Amino acid sequence: MSHGFTSVALVGFLAASASAEPHGASHSAPILFGLAVLVVGAKLGGLIVERFGQPSVLGELLFGIFLANLSPLVAGGAGIEFVRANETLRFLGEIGVLILLFDVGLESDLRAFARVGLSAVLVAVIGVAVPFALGWSVARWILPDSPAMVHVFVGATLTATSVGITARVLKDLNVTGRPESQTIIGAAILDDVLGLIVLAVVAGSATESDGVSAATIVAIVAKAVGFLGVAVLLGHFLSPKLVSFIGRSHGHGLLLITGIALCFMGAYIAETIGLAAIIGAFAAGVFLDPYGVGVRSGPAEITLRELLTPLSDVFVPLFFVLMGLQVNLSSFGDASALGFGGLLIASAIVGKLFCGFGVVGRGLNRFAVGIGMIPRGEVGLIFAGIGASLTIEGQPILSQNTYSAIVMMVLITTLTTPIGLRWIFAAK
Amino acid sequence: MSHGFTSVALVGFLAASASAEPHGASHSAPILFGLAVLVVGAKLGGLIVERFGQPSVLGELLFGIFLANLSPLVAGGAGIEFVRANETLRFLGEIGVLILLFDVGLESDLRAFARVGLSAVLVAVIGVAVPFALGWSVARWILPDSPAMVHVFVGATLTATSVGITARVLKDLNVTGRPESQTIIGAAILDDVLGLIVLAVVAGSATESDGVSAATIVAIVAKAVGFLGVAVLLGHFLSPKLVSFIGRSHGHGLLLITGIALCFMGAYIAETIGLAAIIGAFAAGVFLDPYGVGVRSGPAEITLRELLTPLSDVFVPLFFVLMGLQVNLSSFGDASALGFGGLLIASAIVGKLFCGFGVVGRGLNRFAVGIGMIPRGEVGLIFAGIGASLTIEGQPILSQNTYSAIVMMVLITTLTTPIGLRWIFAAK
Repeated sequence: MSHGFTSVALVGFLAASASAEPHGASHSAPILFGLAVLVVGAKLGGLIVERFGQPSVLGELLFGIFLANLSPLVAGGAGIEFVRANETLRFLGEIGVLILLFDVGLESDLRAFARVGLSAVLVAVIGVAVPFALGWSVARWILPDSPAMVHVFVGATLTATSVGITARVLKDLNVTGRPESQTIIGAAILDDVLGLIVLAVVAGSATESDGVSAATIVAIVAKAVGFLGVAVLLGHFLSPKLVSFIGRSHGHGLLLITGIALCFMGAYIAETIGLAAIIGAFAAGVFLDPYGVGVRSGPAEITLRELLTPLSDVFVPLFFVLMGLQVNLSSFGDASALGFGGLLIASAIVGKLFCGFGVVGRGLNRFAVGIGMIPRGEVGLIFAGIGASLTIEGQPILSQNTYSAIVMMVLITTLTTPIGLRWIFAAK
Repeated sequence: MSHGFTSVALVGFLAASASAEPHGASHSAPILFGLAVLVVGAKLGGLIVERFGQPSVLGELLFGIFLANLSPLVAGGAGIEFVRANETLRFLGEIGVLILLFDVGLESDLRAFARVGLSAVLVAVIGVAVPFALGWSVARWILPDSPAMVHVFVGATLTATSVGITARVLKDLNVTGRPESQTIIGAAILDDVLGLIVLAVVAGSATESDGVSAATIVAIVAKAVGFLGVAVLLGHFLSPKLVSFIGRSHGHGLLLITGIALCFMGAYIAETIGLAAIIGAFAAGVFLDPYGVGVRSGPAEITLRELLTPLSDVFVPLFFVLMGLQVNLSSFGDASALGFGGLLIASAIVGKLFCGFGVVGRGLNRFAVGIGMIPRGEVGLIFAGIGASLTIEGQPILSQNTYSAIVMMVLITTLTTPIGLRWIFAAK
């Protein structure tokens, strides 16, 4: 028995009585407080923007930004710093985005993806190439004296697409089944793979003198294709047997547990082989229900996706509030950052609108696909964070001003996409 | 924007590409792996013991013990150590026990508690006094040369009742509504308050020369009574208005989020004022539905307790697996520890069976109440952990042998209670 055993239920009173600190509390108490505030705030933010006909994810992001930028003025900023930096809350948010992508995987019908497959590939490739070229040009024009690597990095930050935001907005609007949506989701998932490659190339060039070999690029592509391919094949052959075996048990518990465990295990495997965790969660959903028919247990008519709803209701908004919480508006005061930011925003939006030209076939709304690819979300922030942490000639690749401009671009593309998608899908 | 922003979705590839470690993964990957294994193992353990007609919590505990004691022989023990010590998993388990107690609070009808109130108080007091006396006597007899504080501490470890185990078994058996169950739950909650007092007195006497004042004891009792009293009063007057306000919104999301946030906030407040977090979660359930009528949102017939089920299915078993994971069977090899442990087990069981005499009124199964009070669970482990960490005359209050004997007592009382309760409720 470990003497280091820490209480789950009563650790509060250890602090309170054993160490004679009557008002002490465990590590858990502030996390519980933060969690309660975040989930309620997210829900209220979502309900408020829904009143204005907007997808609730917008309200969750705005609540996070509000909390990060207004509340330190009235209450203690230390609490916000705690929530922002807390590993456990970050993990709970990660569970949220994994459940979201698992749910999208469950809902996806591979046959529908196959129909939009060529479009999705073209959309993803255009969505990486054009924004990169535009961002690189803008950076070269605004920062002519900076090393070439700086221009490359700015271009790279424009290539991302936030599959989380995209998938969430389409779910909020209840249009995930439309071919435009399938194209967007397919392309956004591919964009994650392309993003891995872009980042490997850019970061590799910055840190290694000989750059990144073609073998590295081939390895990432092979891993991603192989991983998704194995999930699809196993899903086609094994998943009906697994679901029918689970269906013979009583209650919904086993189906839900199997689904959650597959989601986490897929994310674990993806991360372990060097892919993004969300790709693994999506693959797990595709594995369990490759044709989006809805898996259910026993005689009851409740599907796994319905069983997941309460978990999504709690954890998914948490991810987006925490994303909003990372945005510090005070860095936007500088005029030169504002100008640079404006140009990047224009490049980011125009660049992704070109994606519409990648759509093959008739009858699809190319403009909707372009808009769906715009949000940079957390992926853009990650790129910017790496750029700020890597150095070249003793300076960070992204200066404070450049960094602020990129964050502005991420913020605007992320906040306008829900409004844009809602507008175009309502207009159709 | 914080440069230290860490990815939620793609941190895996930072490790993989930016730092040129192709097989690196984020902090999250091993936690996701551990989580997947624990939830699946818990569910399978539960299903297996259900085949033998036992409550599934027994299977979850046994799976945890199995994992802790058998798997290091075949696989790496480092993985188990990681899971045992991981703060995030511990917190997820805590969420599980909070949801469990919140659910018990929601289900509880205060009028039923009022009817069994006197019984619950007497049962709790007897359940603290008699086991303490027996444990103290055994320790004095076995360890005549140890300081008096050692005897007192051994007695104190026998006073606990695990409200988590008790509530869970009664739920598994679907008998939470019976007066015996209401008496057990009421007494177990009171036992947590009495446990706070016992621990404050014992730990205070060990660490402070002048011991613990009567004022401290009065303060703990006043806080607990005040806290639960405020929850009940506010619940009676405010909760119908709150529920009807939520009912006017669309969808179940708001009701679930309100419930979860109240549960966490109750736990936070309880910890902050020096009570156990589970008391706060229970109080939150009582506040939201004081008479156990079932709160629901809008026109739909789904109650909050039904909405909580998927969250319970995932998180509650996690708590009990993690509890099992703390048990190291290898410390049981010593013959003298075995003998001491046997005597403590007998004292622990006989002492709590006396609780049956505290039941007022006719027609209740006193034996069932006594059995329900037996499990020490996590509360007993916490007491033992404190005893092993405090020193007297340069020695730990609880030696390794004494500690092993106490853990044995906790293990046996915890594992036999589900079997005993199932037997007596089935026989009735």
